[in-house]
Amino acid sequence: MAEDLKEAGGKVRLYVNAPLAAGIAVAPDEGQAHYLMHVMRAKAGDRVTLFNGRDGEWMAEIAEVSKRAIALRCLSRIAPQAEVPDLWLAFAPIKKTPSDYLVQKAAELGVRALLPVFTRRTIVTRINPERMAANAVEAAQQSGRLSVPRVAAGVSFERLLADWPKERTLYFCDEGGDALPLADAATGHVGPAAILTGPEGGFDPAERAALRALPFVVPVTLGPRILRADTAALAALAIWQSVAGDFSQQH
Amino acid sequence: MAEDLKEAGGKVRLYVNAPLAAGIAVAPDEGQAHYLMHVMRAKAGDRVTLFNGRDGEWMAEIAEVSKRAIALRCLSRIAPQAEVPDLWLAFAPIKKTPSDYLVQKAAELGVRALLPVFTRRTIVTRINPERMAANAVEAAQQSGRLSVPRVAAGVSFERLLADWPKERTLYFCDEGGDALPLADAATGHVGPAAILTGPEGGFDPAERAALRALPFVVPVTLGPRILRADTAALAALAIWQSVAGDFSQQH
Repeated sequence: MAEDLKEAGGKVRLYVNAPLAAGIAVAPDEGQAHYLMHVMRAKAGDRVTLFNGRDGEWMAEIAEVSKRAIALRCLSRIAPQAEVPDLWLAFAPIKKTPSDYLVQKAAELGVRALLPVFTRRTIVTRINPERMAANAVEAAQQSGRLSVPRVAAGVSFERLLADWPKERTLYFCDEGGDALPLADAATGHVGPAAILTGPEGGFDPAERAALRALPFVVPVTLGPRILRADTAALAALAIWQSVAGDFSQQH
Repeated sequence: MAEDLKEAGGKVRLYVNAPLAAGIAVAPDEGQAHYLMHVMRAKAGDRVTLFNGRDGEWMAEIAEVSKRAIALRCLSRIAPQAEVPDLWLAFAPIKKTPSDYLVQKAAELGVRALLPVFTRRTIVTRINPERMAANAVEAAQQSGRLSVPRVAAGVSFERLLADWPKERTLYFCDEGGDALPLADAATGHVGPAAILTGPEGGFDPAERAALRALPFVVPVTLGPRILRADTAALAALAIWQSVAGDFSQQH
């Protein structure tokens, strides 16, 4: 349904790769151009905001609209660059729609990176990083974030642990039932962190043992019920942001 | 894809309405019968567990399988009845797939009731309570809950507040930005509670003012980013369960 960019009142935010500075011209990508021209019916002089993950948020105007192209011009910076807490989500990929949903929600909940990991019980054998990245960009645009979560290439469980940066605490959502609640384990956490969630079938015993043997791993529980893989990841991110992240900051 | 009930190792849980007691015969509903016969290929003597929200969890066996019907028999109670925390979710309905997710995940996260509420900016004009109830049952079965969340009939925002049980604290997810973080507001909460989340467009100023004027309402924030309606509801439920609910209980 066609909307109107004016009605959106500068609420339209676009993520771009180009550097942003006063007076600079910015060309939206094909999808963004289509959105501006055919969904938002952009006219010269309409306003949007731009961010690139480096230069803060900028007010921009539609400088020119032709049949085929649209040009934006940066006006002034309306917010300095800001970063989300240093929280990663390492997750066993799940079937398509839940993965789209997971990436979108994780971006809204303020993760800095998404790391797909293939565990023994992971049923999904291939992922679509481009699709995940597109979901991450879309969610970042609508959530007001000034950065887009990085989507890493999928790796094996063994590779993830072998290459893990030791200074980053890995909160492992363990269904074993003898772990600390995440809120207790993470309250006041300082420094880099990550959440690790398993596939529908959970981690196998060897994986659980390997995780529990590592000094940077903290096993945590998400309560007495069995949560679906995507529910567990979202619950863990929300809880971590509440006790150790930026949920105590205002809009 | 057909599975095998034996391989599932008594992991199949079914919610039934019938009373449960030793030796009692229970007839699954049509969908459950189809699932047992054609998906799980149930044979006489196979085991499933049953719960009805009143009598705890029961081990049952397939007593008889014919072409058209399947009969279950209750053997012994394997867990006493237990209830989730007294937490409701009042939410502005959102478009179909997100609503399905929301109901499913809210059930996993342990809500006792789901209350669809039509606010001024709610775009969805009709809901499907049967569909919501079916999603709630399915999620309750797989989550290990011993009860199914009640799905209330949709009501107007004004009606919800006029009929609200005054002793139940209503944590209102306010995008206004001057509220306490939910984790701070709810830590150690005792007594009945509910989370209220708005539609995609948020609450309008008159609704925000009406809520803030009520003694049982506590405005809360979910951090600096703009969350989609379903993300906000799930994040709020996970956080509440962590600081005031049962996430500190083990599996």
